[in-house]
Amino acid sequence: MIRLIQTGPTRPVLALAWLLSLHLAGCAGPSTPCPETPAAAAQEPASVAPVAAADPQPAVAPAPLALSLWTDNARRKAIIDFVARVTDPKSENYVPAAERIAVFDNDGTLWSEQPMYVQLAFVLDRIKALAPQHPEWKKKQPYKAVLEGDMKTLMAMGNEGIIPLMMSSHAATTADEFDTVVREWLKTARHPKYNQLYTDLTYAPMVELLAYLRANDFKTFIVSGGGVAFMRPWVEAAYGIPPEQVVGSRIKAEWKDSDAGGNIVRLAELDFINDGPGKPVGIYNALGRRPIFAAGNSDGDLAMLKWTAGGSGARLALIVHHTDDLRETAYDRKSGMGKLDKGLDVAQQLGAQGKPWILVDMKQDWTKVFRSDAPVGAPGPGPQPMIPSQPAAATQSATTTTPPTTVH
Amino acid sequence: MIRLIQTGPTRPVLALAWLLSLHLAGCAGPSTPCPETPAAAAQEPASVAPVAAADPQPAVAPAPLALSLWTDNARRKAIIDFVARVTDPKSENYVPAAERIAVFDNDGTLWSEQPMYVQLAFVLDRIKALAPQHPEWKKKQPYKAVLEGDMKTLMAMGNEGIIPLMMSSHAATTADEFDTVVREWLKTARHPKYNQLYTDLTYAPMVELLAYLRANDFKTFIVSGGGVAFMRPWVEAAYGIPPEQVVGSRIKAEWKDSDAGGNIVRLAELDFINDGPGKPVGIYNALGRRPIFAAGNSDGDLAMLKWTAGGSGARLALIVHHTDDLRETAYDRKSGMGKLDKGLDVAQQLGAQGKPWILVDMKQDWTKVFRSDAPVGAPGPGPQPMIPSQPAAATQSATTTTPPTTVH
Repeated sequence: MIRLIQTGPTRPVLALAWLLSLHLAGCAGPSTPCPETPAAAAQEPASVAPVAAADPQPAVAPAPLALSLWTDNARRKAIIDFVARVTDPKSENYVPAAERIAVFDNDGTLWSEQPMYVQLAFVLDRIKALAPQHPEWKKKQPYKAVLEGDMKTLMAMGNEGIIPLMMSSHAATTADEFDTVVREWLKTARHPKYNQLYTDLTYAPMVELLAYLRANDFKTFIVSGGGVAFMRPWVEAAYGIPPEQVVGSRIKAEWKDSDAGGNIVRLAELDFINDGPGKPVGIYNALGRRPIFAAGNSDGDLAMLKWTAGGSGARLALIVHHTDDLRETAYDRKSGMGKLDKGLDVAQQLGAQGKPWILVDMKQDWTKVFRSDAPVGAPGPGPQPMIPSQPAAATQSATTTTPPTTVH
Repeated sequence: MIRLIQTGPTRPVLALAWLLSLHLAGCAGPSTPCPETPAAAAQEPASVAPVAAADPQPAVAPAPLALSLWTDNARRKAIIDFVARVTDPKSENYVPAAERIAVFDNDGTLWSEQPMYVQLAFVLDRIKALAPQHPEWKKKQPYKAVLEGDMKTLMAMGNEGIIPLMMSSHAATTADEFDTVVREWLKTARHPKYNQLYTDLTYAPMVELLAYLRANDFKTFIVSGGGVAFMRPWVEAAYGIPPEQVVGSRIKAEWKDSDAGGNIVRLAELDFINDGPGKPVGIYNALGRRPIFAAGNSDGDLAMLKWTAGGSGARLALIVHHTDDLRETAYDRKSGMGKLDKGLDVAQQLGAQGKPWILVDMKQDWTKVFRSDAPVGAPGPGPQPMIPSQPAAATQSATTTTPPTTVH
């Protein structure tokens, strides 16, 4: 999700700036949702899932409630088969519990990244919240543009506008203070389309998959291009993943010693970009082990997926393909955020060769998207969209109500 | 244990170089132990442990076998009391299990760092092992000096000699290859003084303390100035700590993509120094939580200990003071490695003020040092010293055989 940019002769600048510029190009801020999602128009037809031929009778009977939100098809079966193989001590693919490492991207894989990354909404809201302490911002760009909602000017500034916003919203606090700021923001900030708390908009089937893996003695990690300090305050409640099992991008931190004790202070300088080729490196630095299971949704996850799938023994690389334009947003090759282009090719090609790659078709494979969705065929409130072109009814279930007998 | 050095106008150089230079100044390599340990001569008398007044009847009865290798005195009691307070749901100091984070330095805290860091022995042995692939090393410094055992020349070269050795021994391999190299080396390399495998020379009371904390639902981490990739291959067997719970110094790593998969390659460039002020930063970056328990043994651990002790609620900062010149090596303020000077003052001053700092007196407080030691008063082989001035008998127990009635 986040790219490294080289600016000038010195060093890379905060990758989130890239993220921000992509979003600002298409959206007018968290309180003014994108009039359209550019990627949606470029949406490919639901692609063929490159797994083994369909088998309506899974060889391994799923445990009760295991992956209950997943359509009973070949992709669900492939996940269950993988877990059965690595947990069966008699299997040649058995993996000791300590080595059952599963890594998950966050934005677009565990929760929604449309119409903008949640962290971007936080940046813009945070600038507004800090403005009273910075009266000079009323006349100083890029802050002036944010405060006036003048996204056109902000966009025209490019990185020169974006980087100060990132630093002003994320740095110059202690570690404890920033943690509190994020927690407080998430208590009230709402998704511009669904009008729900962001933490209520996690993907229910993926949260179920996390729990399913942990029930089989996997240790689950988040490995995200997003800022690690932005994720840690809430991922335990949302996903059951403790803060110390989150790997992400980060700005530098510094120890400020004092006789009274000392503290960690966050600095306005990039430290590590945990995206693209940074993901396997981030995993290596943080965990020291190659995962046996990885899930992502974009080209930014491809290196992590390849490293995971490339090890010996049983492996599984899973890509969430956003094919559902009714319950969520359909996007892939042309999307400004969560672009899935090369990864789509790799998953399709390797899957067709019998390699352990699964391309999850969100529309076909998930009986729910969000926790608050009614399951397919059942009544329920569902997310409440705020965009007139997507009436509330449309957010519920355009998926088939019976499991497909062939794999899509 | 490892210091940051500024060399020239550009950037810090590998901290292990400093480590290496300190060692080379006093030792002639892993197969030629230091003729004397400089710190020993400067040894202070066993310092006063700054904990509450002695109480031969602990208020909290220890669980069976809990800290059985610790002398039953006020320091042992302070550890047990702390654990009792944070685990009792009725206590005002109760801490939920998920937040019971305990961090331990490695060298000098969990295993011996005398007469040299184990990682340094690895560096020198690794250069020798790689020499056949590098015939030019026979005539090229600093390799020539290592191969000829010419420590005098190597010492005179300073960082210019040391940095290439570090890089040649740690970089230019894949992640998997380096892991294997470390595992293989530890199978045969032996401590120059005790003639045992290094992994057999962990401190038994500290290994017991780790297990005791985990039995009370603490999550235990290593936070070391040593190289993280050097520790991860063996810490699970030695301490019960999995690789993903190890934080350490590191060189840069890079993802090398390929159609066939890709790999992690280790580069000859410093990435992070996890020592001194780097320790709380390393913990923040890796865990995102402030620990409630920390153990160290040197000034390089002081920032970590202060950050840990400075939080709200119940906290414990523990320093292992190397007071035992018979069973191990006595050293503190003047030692070239594991220097404990400012930390000794801080622990004594804050402990005297009733702050949660414990200065463990190795000689008084541990009934065993190494796993292979006979317990105090019992027969047993003990480590086999190779230094004539320290006969085998002297390695066993100069400690008191009964718990002290006053605190030392």
